[in-house]
Amino acid sequence: MAGNTFGTLFKLTTFGESHGEALGGIIDGCPAGVTIDIEAIQHELNRRRPGQSAIVTQRKEPDAVQFLSGLFEGKTTGTPIGFTIPNVNQKSADYSHIKEVYRPSHADYVYDQKYGIRDYRGGGRSSARETVSRVVAGAIAKQMLPEISINAFVSSVGEIFIDKPYQALDFSLTETNAVRCPDIATAKKMEEHIKEVKKQGDTVGGTITCVLKNVPKGLGEPVFDKLHAELGKAMLSINAVKGFEYGSGFCGAKMKGSEHNDLYNTDGTTKTNLSGGIQGGISNGMDIYFRVAFKPVATLMQAQETINTNGEIVTMQGRGRHDACVVPRAIPIVEAMAALVIADYYLMARSDI
Amino acid sequence: MAGNTFGTLFKLTTFGESHGEALGGIIDGCPAGVTIDIEAIQHELNRRRPGQSAIVTQRKEPDAVQFLSGLFEGKTTGTPIGFTIPNVNQKSADYSHIKEVYRPSHADYVYDQKYGIRDYRGGGRSSARETVSRVVAGAIAKQMLPEISINAFVSSVGEIFIDKPYQALDFSLTETNAVRCPDIATAKKMEEHIKEVKKQGDTVGGTITCVLKNVPKGLGEPVFDKLHAELGKAMLSINAVKGFEYGSGFCGAKMKGSEHNDLYNTDGTTKTNLSGGIQGGISNGMDIYFRVAFKPVATLMQAQETINTNGEIVTMQGRGRHDACVVPRAIPIVEAMAALVIADYYLMARSDI
Amino acid sequence: MAGNTFGTLFKLTTFGESHGEALGGIIDGCPAGVTIDIEAIQHELNRRRPGQSAIVTQRKEPDAVQFLSGLFEGKTTGTPIGFTIPNVNQKSADYSHIKEVYRPSHADYVYDQKYGIRDYRGGGRSSARETVSRVVAGAIAKQMLPEISINAFVSSVGEIFIDKPYQALDFSLTETNAVRCPDIATAKKMEEHIKEVKKQGDTVGGTITCVLKNVPKGLGEPVFDKLHAELGKAMLSINAVKGFEYGSGFCGAKMKGSEHNDLYNTDGTTKTNLSGGIQGGISNGMDIYFRVAFKPVATLMQAQETINTNGEIVTMQGRGRHDACVVPRAIPIVEAMAALVIADYYLMARSDI
Amino acid sequence: MAGNTFGTLFKLTTFGESHGEALGGIIDGCPAGVTIDIEAIQHELNRRRPGQSAIVTQRKEPDAVQFLSGLFEGKTTGTPIGFTIPNVNQKSADYSHIKEVYRPSHADYVYDQKYGIRDYRGGGRSSARETVSRVVAGAIAKQMLPEISINAFVSSVGEIFIDKPYQALDFSLTETNAVRCPDIATAKKMEEHIKEVKKQGDTVGGTITCVLKNVPKGLGEPVFDKLHAELGKAMLSINAVKGFEYGSGFCGAKMKGSEHNDLYNTDGTTKTNLSGGIQGGISNGMDIYFRVAFKPVATLMQAQETINTNGEIVTMQGRGRHDACVVPRAIPIVEAMAALVIADYYLMARSDI
Repeated sequence: MAGNTFGTLFKLTTFGESHGEALGGIIDGCPAGVTIDIEAIQHELNRRRPGQSAIVTQRKEPDAVQFLSGLFEGKTTGTPIGFTIPNVNQKSADYSHIKEVYRPSHADYVYDQKYGIRDYRGGGRSSARETVSRVVAGAIAKQMLPEISINAFVSSVGEIFIDKPYQALDFSLTETNAVRCPDIATAKKMEEHIKEVKKQGDTVGGTITCVLKNVPKGLGEPVFDKLHAELGKAMLSINAVKGFEYGSGFCGAKMKGSEHNDLYNTDGTTKTNLSGGIQGGISNGMDIYFRVAFKPVATLMQAQETINTNGEIVTMQGRGRHDACVVPRAIPIVEAMAALVIADYYLMARSDI
Repeated sequence: MAGNTFGTLFKLTTFGESHGEALGGIIDGCPAGVTIDIEAIQHELNRRRPGQSAIVTQRKEPDAVQFLSGLFEGKTTGTPIGFTIPNVNQKSADYSHIKEVYRPSHADYVYDQKYGIRDYRGGGRSSARETVSRVVAGAIAKQMLPEISINAFVSSVGEIFIDKPYQALDFSLTETNAVRCPDIATAKKMEEHIKEVKKQGDTVGGTITCVLKNVPKGLGEPVFDKLHAELGKAMLSINAVKGFEYGSGFCGAKMKGSEHNDLYNTDGTTKTNLSGGIQGGISNGMDIYFRVAFKPVATLMQAQETINTNGEIVTMQGRGRHDACVVPRAIPIVEAMAALVIADYYLMARSDI
Repeated sequence: MAGNTFGTLFKLTTFGESHGEALGGIIDGCPAGVTIDIEAIQHELNRRRPGQSAIVTQRKEPDAVQFLSGLFEGKTTGTPIGFTIPNVNQKSADYSHIKEVYRPSHADYVYDQKYGIRDYRGGGRSSARETVSRVVAGAIAKQMLPEISINAFVSSVGEIFIDKPYQALDFSLTETNAVRCPDIATAKKMEEHIKEVKKQGDTVGGTITCVLKNVPKGLGEPVFDKLHAELGKAMLSINAVKGFEYGSGFCGAKMKGSEHNDLYNTDGTTKTNLSGGIQGGISNGMDIYFRVAFKPVATLMQAQETINTNGEIVTMQGRGRHDACVVPRAIPIVEAMAALVIADYYLMARSDI
Repeated sequence: MAGNTFGTLFKLTTFGESHGEALGGIIDGCPAGVTIDIEAIQHELNRRRPGQSAIVTQRKEPDAVQFLSGLFEGKTTGTPIGFTIPNVNQKSADYSHIKEVYRPSHADYVYDQKYGIRDYRGGGRSSARETVSRVVAGAIAKQMLPEISINAFVSSVGEIFIDKPYQALDFSLTETNAVRCPDIATAKKMEEHIKEVKKQGDTVGGTITCVLKNVPKGLGEPVFDKLHAELGKAMLSINAVKGFEYGSGFCGAKMKGSEHNDLYNTDGTTKTNLSGGIQGGISNGMDIYFRVAFKPVATLMQAQETINTNGEIVTMQGRGRHDACVVPRAIPIVEAMAALVIADYYLMARSDI
């Protein structure tokens, strides 16, 4: 397996299976002298953690990060930051029933096809639990660039959408409800919908919108490594993501140029921002915003037909504690991946002139 | 500027401005012994070339590729393949009017902010002409993997959409019309719409759908370098792209798990394919399909207010020959980038076991 | 800090300071299905460990490796292999005397110049203790390629050299003496010399020769990534290394072509092997051998004048337990780095045809 | 084939066979705004060019570089710099005699083993002619960092060595003689020796010393990417190189710590410089110097036994015009590779704090 590293200069490499000893990672390339607030990092992990509310899985995973290197007297030293998040609550017994079964729309089958061997316990490396390491690294990236704000929120659950532009929302409300939707009326509807879906043993998809403010002008490498291309890859690398759009997105494809062009003010800002803060792959100083589509969780609490490793039809049903909708807990992951991209491109831009 | 290289093992590095001496690139990592059909490569370039039909720009650029290395007696030798596409038809005079103007929703302004210097002639490196090198490399990637078919087609122009699933389309019809839409009735409507928009001096966006068949199982690196994440980055790196979705995409975010899961047949194929041929970031042998959103071309043949390099408001209007809708000519580019991703991941997968 | 990753496909990323919580690393790209012998890995660590004999430092560091991921039922799964080596014996008190002193020919001064901050305890990241992670990864690389033998040995200490070609040596004798020199008579002289130097509070340099047998033909990328170029970089990245030569090396620069050319046997082997098993950067199936020069350890048990962080002259003397000669303990490190290069190039060569 | 790219931020990718259409490359990552002196670049190429004097090969290759992109009004724009050096003087006929012969100590045999196909004309990609692209890129790297001086010179030919430290030499004399040795008396002996060797149809090896002055403090990544490790890889990637040492080098391995340590002056400079300007992998502001060993050229103008592609013994003799000693023409290549490393690490160091 390749591909466990993200970034070029601010670089995260991760390891860990959901039911192994620990997950963790190494951040290489964080500049020296950044003051690190470990509680703030743990806070981000807690936002991702299962068991926070009635609508998410009730597994209790403390997800306590331990830093092993790279910090000295409260600051980064420029050396690689190693960290682990021990798996204190693995219940391998829970997963014996899937040892020889390929769960529908999971990675079980392709892992066996690709590697010929598979740590079947809880999804192993394909479990979304892998993202804890991203959240840790993203939290450090945020602390490296405190002037930039990154706010993700749930913009839809199933067919229920926020019907306002992000400018009309108060991001301070995002964390006030279990769904993490800053539009409180919509949040309630979403929450009810998730509960109902859960009662049916079913799951539902949703979308997350993310807004970055105060990103400096000039981030982005104009050809293959356009800023939005890397943001897109970052988001599409999160489990269950099926789509990414930024600025006008898929709606922009229906528009005319005369409607879509962002005209300039004399100070170089634009009157509109259908470009989503990025032109030609380079940040222009306006808000960067994008939207990410998550499919419904594949593990259902209802019987499904599937096949086992012998290619025989079997019936299975999810057990244990799973999310009925993944988007509320995916908020800190989306923010973390956005922070990693920005930190990396920020360092990269230093070599441009 | 970084980021002029795409791929890890099958690796393309490109150079060139729209009005410089030439564009070109180097393909490093193409295995030895691949038989190369140079006419087929030129054919792909011709598909991208301006001036092919009444609905696209009438610039005449022969876009003839010259190979400088890496081929011997009709085969690849394993050494890097260098190539150029000379710019035979540069008319620098055409562009003096934009020397000191920042065109709305172009990269002019951010280039100046980032680099402090800019080759203003025809957009320079930010011109979509940059993609000729991608098309050459993609054509070679296709020839390396002849068993895989890659078919892109225009699935919408403005508000006009094909209303059929791709399975109901005959891809052999794509090249029979100027829009490159295999649904002939829809193609006609699209063509008329583009002509009308053009008459108004306006432009319009659209989407492209791409379908890959016979991709082997097991391509994709499961965490940051998921196959669809790299496909997404590849597409988002194409000029004017605003969004990417694969499989169920944004629609999947509205669905329930019980509707969305792809149930297995006993041979490991799936009854449905909302996964889009990729599970956990790894190809599963089913068709891979995705959709790409293109914004309307920013250069309009109508007057627009904008600013100049002194921050003064000026009025400008596009001159010369520009596309009113970019999607027909973007078809070979989408296919080329898809081929590059697949070739790279194909080689990568060789080191997995 | 960048540069904590080694390799392209078989890729090691490391972290850790000598007096932090732990050192460790992540191996990404080890193929699935490799049977892992953890005791053999620990054995390699023990060979590097301080306190093994009278001639090396008497620090007691258990250096016990803990694997956190990537192994399942005794085999690699293809997922990243995370591991740590806890620092159980840090005595930060030992190092307070160097907090504000720049030790001669150490990295203290340049770290402060580069980062503006420095974990002064025991050298921090610049300590040779960093190499434990290399030894772990190298041991796994060896297990991935069991048919290849890698034998390093001490070929000189100070002015005392083995005066035989490596073909005349019995590598099974290397581990029978504290110096790790397979020529027993020479080993004794070396050992006595090191003891004498140590008595004087001084240190001495030396060289290590390494021989690889059964490396497959065809490893190596012919231009910038020639096999010997990567071996050279690998060796030069080890603390205290000042030089690298392979095959005829610096002696070859004194020779004539008629003496130096390796003539072929009809089976493609060569009658001589001044090429050192590599031609044009590519392995040719003959033994690969190279030699690495190590400077004398900089920490002396005698008074030296140096400067402190205020630029004032101060007198200092090494304390604690340090090696008088580093080469005996560097043997497993040289072997590990050689193994990492070969494993990486082995996987790389799979994509050549 | 991989490995045709050198560098991480200042990145050169090259292509080209000795008898193909052209050689060339792409420099990605050169910052915008660097004033480029194209004559100075051509001058470096001319220094490498065959046919400059009686002691080097008399082939006439104009080696004229053509820039295709990345420069505008005399400056770099930050976009990739594409360039070619056409092969105007290929005489394929010259090489038909080696089509089916494996020349001793050349890469012919391993190329066939690795790729199963080989452009046999003049060595193809394995020809030292490949280095023209390095010289072009190195010249641009030098222009990016005009304050740093890089001086390479021939320090030995066969058994004839300069017997002075580099500090006693006047580098302005290097170009005054055909051997490129700044010690004139030694240069004469070297020149005579090369002529004599040539008369015998033989060749001879040599060494090059390179001295870098005014390299800023703080360049180098302390673990795997130590500054000297990358310099070593850069030099070992040049055709015919067998060894690399920096600072005290292999001599340092014979010394005691009390002799070898570089004691500090109060300003952070050192009284001696056995460290070679690099400590812990990081430049310390003192002169960086290193030495590179080149084997004798393998092509002899005398009969040698070798094998053909059928494994049969045949007799062959070099034809055409070849160097009897490669080091004089390798001077600009050594300097170019040193410049590439420094430029890359210079940009890299910008992200450290």
